[in-house]
Amino acid sequence: MTKNDKQTIAILGGTGNLGPGLALRWAHAGHEVIIGSRKAEKAQDVAAELNAELGQDLIRGMANEDAARAAPIAVLTVQQEAHQAALNGLRDAMQGKLLVDATARLDFPKLTPPEPPSAAQLAQEILGFGVRVVGAFQTVPAAGLRKNTDQPLDSDVLVCADDQDAAQQVIDLARDAGLNAYYAGGLDKSIVVEGITSLLVTMNKHYGSRHGTIRVVGLPTED
Amino acid sequence: MTKNDKQTIAILGGTGNLGPGLALRWAHAGHEVIIGSRKAEKAQDVAAELNAELGQDLIRGMANEDAARAAPIAVLTVQQEAHQAALNGLRDAMQGKLLVDATARLDFPKLTPPEPPSAAQLAQEILGFGVRVVGAFQTVPAAGLRKNTDQPLDSDVLVCADDQDAAQQVIDLARDAGLNAYYAGGLDKSIVVEGITSLLVTMNKHYGSRHGTIRVVGLPTED
Repeated sequence: MTKNDKQTIAILGGTGNLGPGLALRWAHAGHEVIIGSRKAEKAQDVAAELNAELGQDLIRGMANEDAARAAPIAVLTVQQEAHQAALNGLRDAMQGKLLVDATARLDFPKLTPPEPPSAAQLAQEILGFGVRVVGAFQTVPAAGLRKNTDQPLDSDVLVCADDQDAAQQVIDLARDAGLNAYYAGGLDKSIVVEGITSLLVTMNKHYGSRHGTIRVVGLPTED
Repeated sequence: MTKNDKQTIAILGGTGNLGPGLALRWAHAGHEVIIGSRKAEKAQDVAAELNAELGQDLIRGMANEDAARAAPIAVLTVQQEAHQAALNGLRDAMQGKLLVDATARLDFPKLTPPEPPSAAQLAQEILGFGVRVVGAFQTVPAAGLRKNTDQPLDSDVLVCADDQDAAQQVIDLARDAGLNAYYAGGLDKSIVVEGITSLLVTMNKHYGSRHGTIRVVGLPTED
């Protein structure tokens, strides 16, 4: 299934909604996964639960900064309230690496769409240009991601990055997690992708679903 | 095919990219269509071409304001540069009616996503609360819409409106045009839908397509 060589991927703030599903899917694809959390113990607890589910010890738990130091690529899945503080604590650990920002910009209860700058642009600003920042995975429904984690998911990922190679790496990683992914432009486009989350939550509420999301049609696939 | 009774629909600025495809599709579904343009002659010329294609005289052409006066529902498909001026000229004619704003917010060459307010919100502000404004059809690829106009199109419409009945009317009209449509929230959400156009144009360019667009999955259909 995997096009990538085996990689080590840190999932920072990985004990929340999105992290465990991504961790299990990447572990299934043969990657080494490190769950990061503010407290190492919490990350280790979640890693142990996920390993029990896998029947193998493929996932480790660490404090966020240690997790970032231990991997060449980190996926940030914190809630938006924790976004800026998390990034401030990661600047040194992330230099020279790739950060995937998956922050869902949700402003409850009105679900007002986010205003610029996007979370991904803010991440680039805080981390500096020594870090390649990619926006991705914001529109993936967490409920579906966590189920049947060895199966493809009916959801597409829109990937925004100023660095094409970094975008391609994340497109490949998304496919390893069972998700088709498409390049959707530079980081200046990520505000739209982050806003789609507010549409999807509104639509799921309106139609009584937890699995509503978008797919891309009419483009050649990345294979 | 049609769930709606036969209606009269004005397509304002209807000689551009989106108008002719919508006109043919609604005519196929049994609706009476009026193409509007700044100059009545241009609208009449396009209507004549479309009728020749249909083999029946189902589409008329008028100046925008006359078209708006002659129909209970108008779809605005002008380019964003002409948006505000068009609305200023339609205020009187549209009172008590339903306006669908389909304005594509495209800022060439960088395709920077639009900033608030959305075109649909601006339309509501200019027309006043005597007009029910709905944002829809911004993400439909014009090239596909214009082809096989009696067949469904592989594209979904995200409908934003503060008035649920108005949203439902547009969802039904979209279906009559061969497009599935979903309620995506109030007009405060329309800035995101308008921004999706900049993503789609970017993606189509990147992947060398003219048909790339989004579909919604994981929600019950409206039937």
